[in-house]
Amino acid sequence: MLERSFYNILGFDKSYTESRIVVFGAPFDGTTSYRPGARFACSAIRNESYSIETYSPYQDKDLEDIFVFDAGDLELPFGNAEKVLCQIEAFTAGILKDGKIPLMLGGEHLVSLGAVRAAVKFHKDLHIVHFDAHSDLRDEYLGETLSHATVMRRCWDLVGDGRISQFGIRSGSRDEISWGREHVHTCFFNFDELDHIADALKDKPVYFSVDLDVLDPSAFPGTGTPEAGGVTFHELLKAVEKASGLNIVALDLTELAPTLDPTGASTSLACKLLREVLLYVYK
Amino acid sequence: MLERSFYNILGFDKSYTESRIVVFGAPFDGTTSYRPGARFACSAIRNESYSIETYSPYQDKDLEDIFVFDAGDLELPFGNAEKVLCQIEAFTAGILKDGKIPLMLGGEHLVSLGAVRAAVKFHKDLHIVHFDAHSDLRDEYLGETLSHATVMRRCWDLVGDGRISQFGIRSGSRDEISWGREHVHTCFFNFDELDHIADALKDKPVYFSVDLDVLDPSAFPGTGTPEAGGVTFHELLKAVEKASGLNIVALDLTELAPTLDPTGASTSLACKLLREVLLYVYK
Amino acid sequence: MLERSFYNILGFDKSYTESRIVVFGAPFDGTTSYRPGARFACSAIRNESYSIETYSPYQDKDLEDIFVFDAGDLELPFGNAEKVLCQIEAFTAGILKDGKIPLMLGGEHLVSLGAVRAAVKFHKDLHIVHFDAHSDLRDEYLGETLSHATVMRRCWDLVGDGRISQFGIRSGSRDEISWGREHVHTCFFNFDELDHIADALKDKPVYFSVDLDVLDPSAFPGTGTPEAGGVTFHELLKAVEKASGLNIVALDLTELAPTLDPTGASTSLACKLLREVLLYVYK
Amino acid sequence: MLERSFYNILGFDKSYTESRIVVFGAPFDGTTSYRPGARFACSAIRNESYSIETYSPYQDKDLEDIFVFDAGDLELPFGNAEKVLCQIEAFTAGILKDGKIPLMLGGEHLVSLGAVRAAVKFHKDLHIVHFDAHSDLRDEYLGETLSHATVMRRCWDLVGDGRISQFGIRSGSRDEISWGREHVHTCFFNFDELDHIADALKDKPVYFSVDLDVLDPSAFPGTGTPEAGGVTFHELLKAVEKASGLNIVALDLTELAPTLDPTGASTSLACKLLREVLLYVYK
Amino acid sequence: MLERSFYNILGFDKSYTESRIVVFGAPFDGTTSYRPGARFACSAIRNESYSIETYSPYQDKDLEDIFVFDAGDLELPFGNAEKVLCQIEAFTAGILKDGKIPLMLGGEHLVSLGAVRAAVKFHKDLHIVHFDAHSDLRDEYLGETLSHATVMRRCWDLVGDGRISQFGIRSGSRDEISWGREHVHTCFFNFDELDHIADALKDKPVYFSVDLDVLDPSAFPGTGTPEAGGVTFHELLKAVEKASGLNIVALDLTELAPTLDPTGASTSLACKLLREVLLYVYK
Amino acid sequence: MLERSFYNILGFDKSYTESRIVVFGAPFDGTTSYRPGARFACSAIRNESYSIETYSPYQDKDLEDIFVFDAGDLELPFGNAEKVLCQIEAFTAGILKDGKIPLMLGGEHLVSLGAVRAAVKFHKDLHIVHFDAHSDLRDEYLGETLSHATVMRRCWDLVGDGRISQFGIRSGSRDEISWGREHVHTCFFNFDELDHIADALKDKPVYFSVDLDVLDPSAFPGTGTPEAGGVTFHELLKAVEKASGLNIVALDLTELAPTLDPTGASTSLACKLLREVLLYVYK
Repeated sequence: MLERSFYNILGFDKSYTESRIVVFGAPFDGTTSYRPGARFACSAIRNESYSIETYSPYQDKDLEDIFVFDAGDLELPFGNAEKVLCQIEAFTAGILKDGKIPLMLGGEHLVSLGAVRAAVKFHKDLHIVHFDAHSDLRDEYLGETLSHATVMRRCWDLVGDGRISQFGIRSGSRDEISWGREHVHTCFFNFDELDHIADALKDKPVYFSVDLDVLDPSAFPGTGTPEAGGVTFHELLKAVEKASGLNIVALDLTELAPTLDPTGASTSLACKLLREVLLYVYK
Repeated sequence: MLERSFYNILGFDKSYTESRIVVFGAPFDGTTSYRPGARFACSAIRNESYSIETYSPYQDKDLEDIFVFDAGDLELPFGNAEKVLCQIEAFTAGILKDGKIPLMLGGEHLVSLGAVRAAVKFHKDLHIVHFDAHSDLRDEYLGETLSHATVMRRCWDLVGDGRISQFGIRSGSRDEISWGREHVHTCFFNFDELDHIADALKDKPVYFSVDLDVLDPSAFPGTGTPEAGGVTFHELLKAVEKASGLNIVALDLTELAPTLDPTGASTSLACKLLREVLLYVYK
Repeated sequence: MLERSFYNILGFDKSYTESRIVVFGAPFDGTTSYRPGARFACSAIRNESYSIETYSPYQDKDLEDIFVFDAGDLELPFGNAEKVLCQIEAFTAGILKDGKIPLMLGGEHLVSLGAVRAAVKFHKDLHIVHFDAHSDLRDEYLGETLSHATVMRRCWDLVGDGRISQFGIRSGSRDEISWGREHVHTCFFNFDELDHIADALKDKPVYFSVDLDVLDPSAFPGTGTPEAGGVTFHELLKAVEKASGLNIVALDLTELAPTLDPTGASTSLACKLLREVLLYVYK
Repeated sequence: MLERSFYNILGFDKSYTESRIVVFGAPFDGTTSYRPGARFACSAIRNESYSIETYSPYQDKDLEDIFVFDAGDLELPFGNAEKVLCQIEAFTAGILKDGKIPLMLGGEHLVSLGAVRAAVKFHKDLHIVHFDAHSDLRDEYLGETLSHATVMRRCWDLVGDGRISQFGIRSGSRDEISWGREHVHTCFFNFDELDHIADALKDKPVYFSVDLDVLDPSAFPGTGTPEAGGVTFHELLKAVEKASGLNIVALDLTELAPTLDPTGASTSLACKLLREVLLYVYK
Repeated sequence: MLERSFYNILGFDKSYTESRIVVFGAPFDGTTSYRPGARFACSAIRNESYSIETYSPYQDKDLEDIFVFDAGDLELPFGNAEKVLCQIEAFTAGILKDGKIPLMLGGEHLVSLGAVRAAVKFHKDLHIVHFDAHSDLRDEYLGETLSHATVMRRCWDLVGDGRISQFGIRSGSRDEISWGREHVHTCFFNFDELDHIADALKDKPVYFSVDLDVLDPSAFPGTGTPEAGGVTFHELLKAVEKASGLNIVALDLTELAPTLDPTGASTSLACKLLREVLLYVYK
Repeated sequence: MLERSFYNILGFDKSYTESRIVVFGAPFDGTTSYRPGARFACSAIRNESYSIETYSPYQDKDLEDIFVFDAGDLELPFGNAEKVLCQIEAFTAGILKDGKIPLMLGGEHLVSLGAVRAAVKFHKDLHIVHFDAHSDLRDEYLGETLSHATVMRRCWDLVGDGRISQFGIRSGSRDEISWGREHVHTCFFNFDELDHIADALKDKPVYFSVDLDVLDPSAFPGTGTPEAGGVTFHELLKAVEKASGLNIVALDLTELAPTLDPTGASTSLACKLLREVLLYVYK
């Protein structure tokens, strides 16, 4: 009899039980105010990841040696952000309960809130390390409290002062930047203070959220709100390596909007970064 | 002192008070399940409409002779469909209260529900004439009752049996098509029965909703869900002419997604159709 | 435990054993001389087909009621056309041996030759019905005998005079058109003689090959060699309906090149046509 | 020694002396008010024409049998329309003086004026047959008398009343349409009166100008100002066949803007139409 | 009564009288020899600027605190460069006469000449600081003296030797580079000598012209003539900061061609740079 | 009589006899496994190169002073890699036999094998210097020994251990990287060891192969397999300068896929690099 063969992300074919990291997609961009398209990120990564080698010359490691499960994409309703977050929270909680590390592929950045909600229930002292071009600390946006522009403020509601460390930030309203100075740690434009923060967070449970628009648009134009003046792929890779020394309990990569970059280079970069992140974080 | 000059849609520069039709944009596509982008339609039409002549050789009439006000676009939140509908309903009601005809430019098709809610309060015996590729009669979609795929079912909740007439329909689930046979009038694939319906609706107040994907994708690829086998521009124009004989109290053009057609031909067609619709409907 | 969910083409989830039609992809465009990209057709159809309803208002039938298996895509080497054809022939033969109908999604048109080689072994009196813009009857092209431009000549090598009927042809070299007049039946520009041919072929085993560029580029620009002056979707649908009355033992849809049409309308049309073809051919 | 091989348009390799038609490009779009790009038309046709067969199944004739010279493209300055027209006039006059038929590939429609200036000097009783979506009869546009929107008015300055026959017109200002009723013959929307005009013009010297935007944007989106509601490729081909019965002394194809249609179908259609025009006009 | 709301550039809503900087657009690209599209820059910046925050984390300043007027775009004829320059000169002169700083958004680089003509009448000892990939010092181009490739040579006609300082130059003909060595100051490839020049020009009135193609195409591909090897956004920002210490009496940003970069990153960068330039220059 | 004028690459108009470098195109991408399109590189460079100045401010040299012949593009069959290599080998051998330096423009990287086959016959002690993102050292790929992914392994078959030096490598399978450590010299990620290698190879005959995907995708997204983390244009230019000190007997630039970068920046960079390479290598 004929056998079907479908591509998993990066060719992962390990079972759920034996895996230590579980990758899944959250194809939602329902609050994106400017240019939608992040909903297509997880399927784009799934479709294109076969073009990436499983071997990393940066780390001299191979994905074939680690145990990762690709759980596919959630089926999320549009037009109801709260319901979407509930589904993500429930799915993430299931993975955490099984003692595994969830790695969520967005979708827009708001999806992180669903996963953080789950993580904070398992780890009362959860810290968040956040790479992004935007501080995402507004209290509301266009009258809505749930938005890609408020996601870190909503996370702050859950974890409180001093628990969120942001890097690469180069955009925000005066009010949110001002609010941020009192409630979170923000490293503007780069990762200069990451070593320092990494020391301080040693052994703390960390949620690691990478909004890919932290990258310069020259390297990553395929995102809803490109912000000139970002970091290079090399700088991001270096920072991911440092962050991977933390006790990461859950993580995400968000805000790839693949159709906005017709060259495909943004999707390709995301696939490669995913490989490196997995090899760094896997222990 | 210098004077600013901005383009209004089709160059409209009449005041609100003297105008009989009020055009406004509803830039929302938050429930679009497949390919978003309809949010950009009203600004695209505003930006590109200057390339269209104000004179119609089809009708030998000129927009410069009629009184239409361009009210700009609503500022709508994403991620909360119900709130969006409330805003649209309130705005539409304001226009109706002033005895004018609202012409809403979508956005996705769900925005029609907001306007229909307003119209049905002013006209208890409201009928709906609906051009579309999709019947949009599902009761829920991905668990949500407010969706571009349920919009006509929600309208039916408001107007009841026998009040909705659909034309050009060529896609739907078996269930919704089956449900539709008992509750609405559906003319599949074309406008053949429009004459007949137009006679029956004479003098009734009519909400006229044009989902532009009723057009064949060859003429109009710039839409979220292109459906092969649609009508030509000529056929649509002919049908709009017929429909304009009705007592239209409010109307809309929805589902242009301009960035999905990089040739610009879809936006250009929408601008031209808007001109013709206005000249036909204006009395 | 978590369950993976991946999209099959058009949501097919029947088993191989119970299915009567087996769909598979042949992602090869290695002899395409002008604009490559047909290799991406089967994965594009797989990814986009979820946007198409399973119900056909044309036939009042639903894919959920028929038994079709999606066997995924063959993994084909590039740069060696003969080897590719061998793989396709073997795969097709396996399906035919099990008494099922293979429906191959190209790929460029040359892939048809692999499937025809298999079919002609099972059906000595095989006829070929061929919809195409190009007659594909050259004996060689740029010195090669295996090419998208020679595929029907190579099929003729297998079946001989009077066994190939072409429809919609509107391009060819003087030599191949002239050769064609003596060896195959060619209906130029349209399907006018299809009724007549359908009568003549009653009960004969037929391989049905649809090169999608038979469509006019206005409806289907996403193909390697667009040829103005083609048929409409309606005309093709009508012709497919007629052809489905034949005793079709194997079939294919080829030459969608999805990335050449950034609007996505070509891929969407191909998905819809696939649904209609399956519902017509399934008995 | 190595020999260079470059593609001429449609592979023409006849010498100037033996040729009866001379094709040349006028890559100018300097007065285009909306979307420029027509300057790239002649090089696009030259680059892509190799994908078109030299044989026409419509006429059963082959380009290899006729004598046409490809003179390459003029090198035109931008920012000075009058100078451009002088260059075109001089080049066209040279061809006419040698007793050959010039076929100019635009460029925007204004380039026709340069060629008409030359033709009217050789043929005092010149008539113009003009296929277009736009009447191009304005006296000035944005303060300029030389513009793609005034080109036929400027031609009228040269030939006077009753000498210009327009077909397919579906756009214009009220003023120019009104002016046109008294000074030119305009057939709106289609070619219905072409037979009649063709009879009337028998034996008169005719300049034949085809603005390709006479085609519907579904078939030809690659043009600066797409106008919905145009003619099909079949209808245009039929009309070209009729027009070719006239005594054509010079002709042009203008307003392809190849980069505006990323599918390439517009350029491909223009190449094919060029083949048919040449085969029809060549005697 | 309903109120219209249109987006001004970056949300500017101050009156002309109270403003110190006046932004206006010069949508002209009529001499662009290679790839046109700069005409669309000012409307693209106007449409997209709402996606940029008004607050700058680089300068800790906010556009809401400064007084800038958006005067909209000039309506310029195409095909007549001299007339275009006259309109720009007149408009710029009006602003200068009112004691305000004009900031012109191109259009192609030739538009700078119109503004420089105005500025040199108000400031006899005007200096020009010029960021660009191309030296633009040709005396004529394709026979024309007014061209994007001659604009700095025409400015030199007005200001004479030693008054033009160019930075970032990495392209030119041998002749113009050679001519430049004797008449202007050219800093190749970077801004290394900007400090030195800034000292020398202290208190002199300066026209500051930024041709955005000084940026590397990786950051800014949306321009008519991309030149590899340019500066980064960070480097440009740093240089703009330095230049803003000068006595700038008028300035421009030119050569964004938004449709050439379908990712939108080029337009987005231009919007952000405009914010930074305004906040730096405003005093 | 009229004279035809066609663009040669970079305007080269010297005769074959007097030239010392011969440029030709090898438009083949038949083994490309992921995204085809490199076949269009040589014609894109030919068409766009006129937008590049002939003068280099980097070297203060001008193409007009050197003798280079543009031999046009080979006409290669698709679907038969071995035959393609034979044609390339024969063509290259002809140039080498005449004592000239062949510079081949790909095409995919496999085309290098044809030229290396020719070069190794003329220079038994040939060394290969190879800039690339991918090591291309697989022994077979999808069952094929001739592939863009095996090209350097096939070259090794010809030259043996210690003769291949790779730079910029950042992707490969574990097996090929491991194999490479024993048989070739690989400098990962950058050109750090190029000085060292250049010393060692002094006077040896060198084949210089530049796979343009060695560049970072931010600068060069127009390639089949973009790999994040590459070198900048400046770094590549520096490395080319160093390599040009070697005794280069033949060279190539491969893997530009122009249609994959709709901004045109990749093609423009390739044209500029070609100018610099020619000016560096020419002696």
